Amino acid sequence: MQKKAAEETALKIDKKAATRRIVISEVFPQVDDGRYPAKFCVGDRLEVSANVFTDGHSELSVDLEIRPPQGSAVVRIPMRPLGNDRWSAEHSLTIRGAYTFIIIAWRNDFATWLSDARKRITAQQPMETELEQAKTLLGEGLRNASGSSAEREFQELVARVCECSTLEEHMSLLGSAETRRLFRTAGPRAHEIVSEHDFPLIVERKRAGFGAWYELMPRSLSAAPGQHGTFDDVIEHLPYVGNMGFDVLYFPPIHPIGTTHRKGRNNSLSADEGDPGSPYAIGSPEGGHDAMHPELGDFEDFERLIAAARDAGLEVALDFAIQCSPDHPWIKEHPEWFKWRSDGSIRFAENPPKKYEDIVNVEFYGAAFPRVWFALRDIVLFWVEKGVKIFRVDNPHTKPFPFWEWLINEIRAQDPDVIFLSEAFTRPNIMQYLAKIGFTQSYSYFTWRNTKQELTEYLTELTKGPSSAYMRPNFFVNTPDINPYYLQTGGRAAFQARLILAASLGTNYGIYSGFELCEAEALPGKEEYADSEKYQLKQRDWDRPGHIREDIERINHLRQTSAALHDFKNVRFYNAWNDNILYYGKATKDLRDFLLFAVNLDPRNPQGAHFEVPLWEFGMPDEASIEVDDLINGQRFTWTGKVQHVYLDPAIRPYAIWRLHGPGGAA
Amino acid sequence: MQKKAAEETALKIDKKAATRRIVISEVFPQVDDGRYPAKFCVGDRLEVSANVFTDGHSELSVDLEIRPPQGSAVVRIPMRPLGNDRWSAEHSLTIRGAYTFIIIAWRNDFATWLSDARKRITAQQPMETELEQAKTLLGEGLRNASGSSAEREFQELVARVCECSTLEEHMSLLGSAETRRLFRTAGPRAHEIVSEHDFPLIVERKRAGFGAWYELMPRSLSAAPGQHGTFDDVIEHLPYVGNMGFDVLYFPPIHPIGTTHRKGRNNSLSADEGDPGSPYAIGSPEGGHDAMHPELGDFEDFERLIAAARDAGLEVALDFAIQCSPDHPWIKEHPEWFKWRSDGSIRFAENPPKKYEDIVNVEFYGAAFPRVWFALRDIVLFWVEKGVKIFRVDNPHTKPFPFWEWLINEIRAQDPDVIFLSEAFTRPNIMQYLAKIGFTQSYSYFTWRNTKQELTEYLTELTKGPSSAYMRPNFFVNTPDINPYYLQTGGRAAFQARLILAASLGTNYGIYSGFELCEAEALPGKEEYADSEKYQLKQRDWDRPGHIREDIERINHLRQTSAALHDFKNVRFYNAWNDNILYYGKATKDLRDFLLFAVNLDPRNPQGAHFEVPLWEFGMPDEASIEVDDLINGQRFTWTGKVQHVYLDPAIRPYAIWRLHGPGGAA
Repeated sequence: MQKKAAEETALKIDKKAATRRIVISEVFPQVDDGRYPAKFCVGDRLEVSANVFTDGHSELSVDLEIRPPQGSAVVRIPMRPLGNDRWSAEHSLTIRGAYTFIIIAWRNDFATWLSDARKRITAQQPMETELEQAKTLLGEGLRNASGSSAEREFQELVARVCECSTLEEHMSLLGSAETRRLFRTAGPRAHEIVSEHDFPLIVERKRAGFGAWYELMPRSLSAAPGQHGTFDDVIEHLPYVGNMGFDVLYFPPIHPIGTTHRKGRNNSLSADEGDPGSPYAIGSPEGGHDAMHPELGDFEDFERLIAAARDAGLEVALDFAIQCSPDHPWIKEHPEWFKWRSDGSIRFAENPPKKYEDIVNVEFYGAAFPRVWFALRDIVLFWVEKGVKIFRVDNPHTKPFPFWEWLINEIRAQDPDVIFLSEAFTRPNIMQYLAKIGFTQSYSYFTWRNTKQELTEYLTELTKGPSSAYMRPNFFVNTPDINPYYLQTGGRAAFQARLILAASLGTNYGIYSGFELCEAEALPGKEEYADSEKYQLKQRDWDRPGHIREDIERINHLRQTSAALHDFKNVRFYNAWNDNILYYGKATKDLRDFLLFAVNLDPRNPQGAHFEVPLWEFGMPDEASIEVDDLINGQRFTWTGKVQHVYLDPAIRPYAIWRLHGPGGAA
Repeated sequence: MQKKAAEETALKIDKKAATRRIVISEVFPQVDDGRYPAKFCVGDRLEVSANVFTDGHSELSVDLEIRPPQGSAVVRIPMRPLGNDRWSAEHSLTIRGAYTFIIIAWRNDFATWLSDARKRITAQQPMETELEQAKTLLGEGLRNASGSSAEREFQELVARVCECSTLEEHMSLLGSAETRRLFRTAGPRAHEIVSEHDFPLIVERKRAGFGAWYELMPRSLSAAPGQHGTFDDVIEHLPYVGNMGFDVLYFPPIHPIGTTHRKGRNNSLSADEGDPGSPYAIGSPEGGHDAMHPELGDFEDFERLIAAARDAGLEVALDFAIQCSPDHPWIKEHPEWFKWRSDGSIRFAENPPKKYEDIVNVEFYGAAFPRVWFALRDIVLFWVEKGVKIFRVDNPHTKPFPFWEWLINEIRAQDPDVIFLSEAFTRPNIMQYLAKIGFTQSYSYFTWRNTKQELTEYLTELTKGPSSAYMRPNFFVNTPDINPYYLQTGGRAAFQARLILAASLGTNYGIYSGFELCEAEALPGKEEYADSEKYQLKQRDWDRPGHIREDIERINHLRQTSAALHDFKNVRFYNAWNDNILYYGKATKDLRDFLLFAVNLDPRNPQGAHFEVPLWEFGMPDEASIEVDDLINGQRFTWTGKVQHVYLDPAIRPYAIWRLHGPGGAA
């Protein structure tokens, strides 16, 4: 009866499934099991790891196969076991574009034989039948290599084995690196398996992962009070920004501004004569997203500005804000791209009960689909052709996710250098999802993380959590929309502390102009700037006493020259016994560049703390001595012993920066 | 030029992808994104949760759809938002078998309208065009319901809206629960999306998740010294086991034992005359895996034993050990199922340099495939037909993973009541993977987790970590193969402590006979029992002084009567200020059954500790009073204040068990 049952169902077994004896799981880096790419920059070292295991006692061989962007040859690297079924391999990412990798594993019967044979020899067990077994494996190797370039190698190996007489001779030949390599590369691959997914990576230019941003409103740069600034005024101002050591110069929208429902000073509902309006109310009879606000200059002026900025070490970034003023040409040309009320009026933007009377949103579906998608893509391509390769995207979370995924892919296909910064200050899932679907960088909650615990937890999440595979935060200390309470109330030391935190913890960080002057005047009870230049022209005295330009120059210079500050994920928080002092290290893997930062988070009081010098990172004992550079005053000295003390007076400078010179480190 | 580009590529957009605006992620419970089922027992409450979000400010509706085993109707339940984009729903699992669930989400335009309208009314904004908009939505609802049973409901609603005159009337009707329900169930579903995977669940009988096991070797149960025990001897012994309150009575293999290379006492290489051999050397001329060891009795005796055990509250479990003795009938009948050396001898089992001369392993591939798979399946089915529904599987990790996945599915298709316990003491990935592919229960590292930190960390991993979705550990305190050092050296109190830990922390736990007598004599320096009954007959004095039967009866009785002990994942570790005292709670969700355990892990010295009574779990202040039952002596008393003290003397009893009666709890 049993036999009959077996016969009847014998055909039902899935032979392919029945041979899948090897498991590949917990692959890193990956985002949602390969649905989205993990992010890297050119020059980064890719570390792939995975759990790979099988039943029984067989030896496994595991390969990492990397497929670089089109045209480059596939790379295959042996993975090495780290213990506990974890395997790992590394590879340098040198080409910009879309990579994928897979993992391949098989049971290496020859390696199993060799490992067992060595154990048997140690236990002084008889080896005759084992050597017979080796010859069988050699025969299988030869058959497997038949017709390939390895066939001759196997033939030679067989011939040499036949010449062996003693056990020692056999083992010396069979255990040689050459024989092992031959079986590994050309031997049979029992139960070979490939990871279930292709894991994609996106490798971008270095600026995607590292840059100091400076945001300014060109119209505020006129030297003459009350006069609208121009691109030429910005060109005049470039040395000021460039000398502070910034990399990216970012402008809010520079397009014509609507007049219908134009906002007045401090966001008032009616504009006075001469009020310039919010630059986010894009579009007027003079043009829309592909036009220039006439008072700023023309395209020729703009291109001159881009070139001059480049000479000052600055790359220009523009805003991509999809909304339109009611005067935008599209509204007449493409009424089907907008939403209309039953009374025939256009529906302005709102988030009930809030109303934004000076802008209207485009529709993405219905009659607008897909023409408006292409129009928006072509706007971006238009500016890319003008030389702009960095876009800060306004409020992406209020536009459809699939639109962004499509748009960014379309643009990348044209020019993989284009960078998109997501300005989505919203719930964590949504911020993370925008990063998954393609945004190069993301605004973050850093702007509101002020205490030691908040900063430690948030940085740990960003640098060690799952989102670290795909989200690159850009740490803005302020923006035209955010005048943080900490800065409103903390005075100059608060600006210094936030600067150092942003610039050292964030490989990408930014300030909005005025920050360096410690501007903090707010609308009462709000995180808004008083007399915000979103709604009016502003003149500043750039040499106003109390500015922190020296701090900015120092930290930006250190960013340029310290390799440790180019890695976002290398931060380590160390012990300083004072909850007001955040103390952390940034170091390269080889420890040759090892920076320590201590920042007093209390802008009102001097704070002191004992802290631990991380001698253990160098393998040094607690009582060792280590050479230190004070990177503020340039002095070299010695710390002896693990516990040292620091005193940080906000009236002088709320931070300290040191470089450690451990054994083997650069002198 | 831009327009042309748009035209050219207009056909390239993927319309389906372009409308996927809703994201469903981080679904729980799930195992490897739905590749393997999450495990439950009949009567369990399923809690499904997921992140569900969309761009913009739209209101979402989210449904959980549960598909019970064949024949039962699909259940659809609205999920409720928990905040921060997390949604959740619950459902009772009442049917044994394979469930799946999916999640469905859509943008509920009517709900968005209603939410916005309420905000506008609060802000006293004009509502005329909003009410027009509501009528448009009503029209869409009517169209959508056309032809369905909801059409008439929409018609009536439209008629009633037409009769409304004031804003209040409109809002009262449009905001009613009835209108919201109508739109939710029958209204349009903008951008509707279904989770990318079906998430499978397996719901098993209660014994899969809860049971106290007692392991014994039937051959050791003869009352006469030196005589081989029989099934009838086991029947005599059933009251002893049943009265201790066990649920499962498990026997190592009961099949004929080979004589070739039979092992002698203490695993010696040659057996003496009369040595019975290891029961794991399965098969002799008298038969193989489907035969009975003649000295134990015949099938009739065995069936009588199963029935008598059932009457004593015990379900019989058997061993499924795939290896064969060299005398197994299969070796002659199916030589192609085994591995042969070049000298014509059979290859016995080994794990170099270890050798197991009395057993040979079957081959699973090559000429043995798939016939040996079916033969093994039919062995299990054979015993299932004899009434055995629980199998402890010997060393599953040395047999192919796909074999187990296939075998367990095959058996479950015949009888979903069959339970498989995986005896894989190996690396964590492999133990977990065997649980993923189908094993009902798993041996665990509990046997070696002795300190407070070890137990806390391990239980936290097992009850809160990812493996808690699919792995049910069975906490064996000892086995014929494991005589833990802690028990070898700790004396009676060590046995009491380990018993209480296993039986309270593990919903499934087990002891191997002799444990209750505090047997601990070991081979020097090994975790092996001296004179192990794996290789010889053993007689025991079951009433030997110093046994811990009373402790076993007490805890097993508590297990039967306390709902809190039926949930593996509900353990909470609380503060007791002594590293030798492990202190934890087990409570039902409604807190009506709330147990506290304090166990002295130091079997040599009395230990005392202050500990925190978890008054906060009941929402009580730190200085509150609470009624307590001492479950050892049956006394009721009162604790006043959060901090109390306990003193546990191993010479008396190394543990305390209390039941709390909080407000609202049973008196």
